[in-house]
Amino acid sequence: MNRSVFFISDGTAITAETFGHSLLTQFPEMEFRQIRLPFVDSPEKAEDALAMINRAAEEDGVEPLVFNTIVDRDVGSILDRGRGHVMDMFGTFLDPMEKILGSKSSPQVGQAHGMRDKDSYEDRMEATNYALTHDDGVTQRLDDAEVILVGVSRSGKTPTCLYMALHFGVKAANYPLTDEDLEKPRLPNFLRKHRKKLYGLTIDFNRLSAIREIRRPGSKYASLRQCRFEVESAEALLRAEGVAILSTTHASVEEIASRILVELGLQRELF
Amino acid sequence: MNRSVFFISDGTAITAETFGHSLLTQFPEMEFRQIRLPFVDSPEKAEDALAMINRAAEEDGVEPLVFNTIVDRDVGSILDRGRGHVMDMFGTFLDPMEKILGSKSSPQVGQAHGMRDKDSYEDRMEATNYALTHDDGVTQRLDDAEVILVGVSRSGKTPTCLYMALHFGVKAANYPLTDEDLEKPRLPNFLRKHRKKLYGLTIDFNRLSAIREIRRPGSKYASLRQCRFEVESAEALLRAEGVAILSTTHASVEEIASRILVELGLQRELF
Repeated sequence: MNRSVFFISDGTAITAETFGHSLLTQFPEMEFRQIRLPFVDSPEKAEDALAMINRAAEEDGVEPLVFNTIVDRDVGSILDRGRGHVMDMFGTFLDPMEKILGSKSSPQVGQAHGMRDKDSYEDRMEATNYALTHDDGVTQRLDDAEVILVGVSRSGKTPTCLYMALHFGVKAANYPLTDEDLEKPRLPNFLRKHRKKLYGLTIDFNRLSAIREIRRPGSKYASLRQCRFEVESAEALLRAEGVAILSTTHASVEEIASRILVELGLQRELF
Repeated sequence: MNRSVFFISDGTAITAETFGHSLLTQFPEMEFRQIRLPFVDSPEKAEDALAMINRAAEEDGVEPLVFNTIVDRDVGSILDRGRGHVMDMFGTFLDPMEKILGSKSSPQVGQAHGMRDKDSYEDRMEATNYALTHDDGVTQRLDDAEVILVGVSRSGKTPTCLYMALHFGVKAANYPLTDEDLEKPRLPNFLRKHRKKLYGLTIDFNRLSAIREIRRPGSKYASLRQCRFEVESAEALLRAEGVAILSTTHASVEEIASRILVELGLQRELF
C-alpha cells in the first residue's frame, strides 16, 4: 500500500514540495506516491485538486497527505472538504506571526518564487552568464570571479557554479586540472594570484571512473588507474597550495554550493 | 526598526529560507533583516546561533523571528531558550504526521537537499550537460531534447533551460531567433519537425532593450526599434506556427520553468 501525497500551491509548489519532502524523509520505512499540483489559484482548480485527492483516497484505500501552501484562504479551504489530511503550511505559521508582529498579513500569491526584486533577478542572470563564459577554464581572466572551483574533469564543478549563479547570484568560475597541471608542483600563476577565491572539489576515484565510463566507455580517461592518479595528484596539489577541498561523492549540488559560500564568507540572501 | 529573522537548519537551510521568505512576503509593509545559518548540527553550533539571536534582540530592540528546521530535537530545542520567537517548522508537522501515518519518525538530518537518489542526481547532471551543449542554437540535432525553447536573444531561454536541468533533470535545448529567421514565414525545418517540444519565450520590448543596453550600450542590437521589431516578429511567427508563448517580463525562472513543464506534460518529481 502506497499512500498518496499532494503538494498543492497557487505558485510553483516548489516550496510545498521541498518542505514536504524533508518531512516525508523522516519516515524512511514508508513509501509514498507524490503528486505536485502547481498554479491552483482559483476555486475551480481547487475543486479539481479536491477530486484528485478523493480519487486517490479511493484507489489507495488510505487517506492522502496534502501539503497546502495556497495563500488565498477561500481557495485553500476548499481542500479541507476532501478525504485528505491537510497540512496548512501557511495558515499554521501566519496566525502566530500576526500576533508576534502585531500586524495583519495581506495575501500575496506565489511570492516564494515570484520575481520580487528586479535587481536580484538581474544579478542572477548576470551571474549565470558569467558562469557560462567562465566555465571549464575557457579564460584565464578571473578578476571578476567571486569563487573559482578547481578539480579534475567530472568532479562536479560546472553544476555547482551554475547553482551558485542561479540561486545566489554569485559569479563562479571553474578550472579543470589536466594531466599537465598535475605533473607540476604548483598551480598555474593565473590561479595562484586568486588563491583566496579558490575552492577544490574532489570525488572518490571509483565513482569518478563510473561517471566517466558513461561518457567515454573503455577509455583511458575513464580507467580506474587514470582516475586514481588524477584524484590523488589533485588532492596533493591543492593541499600543498593551502586550498580547501570538499568531496562531492556523497553531497548534493545544493549542499556543496552552500558549504563553499559559507566557508568563503559569501553568504547571500537566497532569491 | 528592522526586525531580525533567522533561518536555521542542520542542512543547507534552503528549505527554511525559501519557506520563511514566502511567509514574510505576506507582511509587505514590514522590513526584515534576514540571516541564514546553515549546517547547525551540534549543540555547540546551536549555542552560537542562540548567542546571535540574543545579540540581535538586544541591537534591534525587538525579538527576532526564528525559522527552525533542525531535525535533531535536542539540538533544535536549544534555540527555544533564547529571546527569539521560534517557529518549529519540523516539529509542528511531524507530530500530526506521526498520528496520521501511525508511525514514529526517525530523525534524518539534512535530507531536503541531500543526495537521496544517485540515479536522480545523475539524471540532473546529464541534463545539465545536455543544456550546456544544446544552448543558443549551437546544434540542430535535437532528437534527445524534451523541451526546445525558442525566442529572441536575451528573452530568458538559457537560465530557464539550466533551471529545468538542475532541478527537474529535464533535457532542455534552446534556439535564438535571428533577424534571418524572423524575415521568413516559417520556422527552420529542424525546429518544425519537433513542434510538440517547442515552447516560445517572449518579453516586453522595453525591458528587452534595457537588458540589452547593459550588454551593448548604444548598439542597434539594444535599440528600442530593433527590440520591438524582433519581439513583434517572433510572436507573430510563433503564433503562426501554433507554438505556445510565455512572457518572461514579470515571471521568475522558477515560474517559467514550472509552467512550461506542466503545459508540456513533463511533470517531474523535484530532486
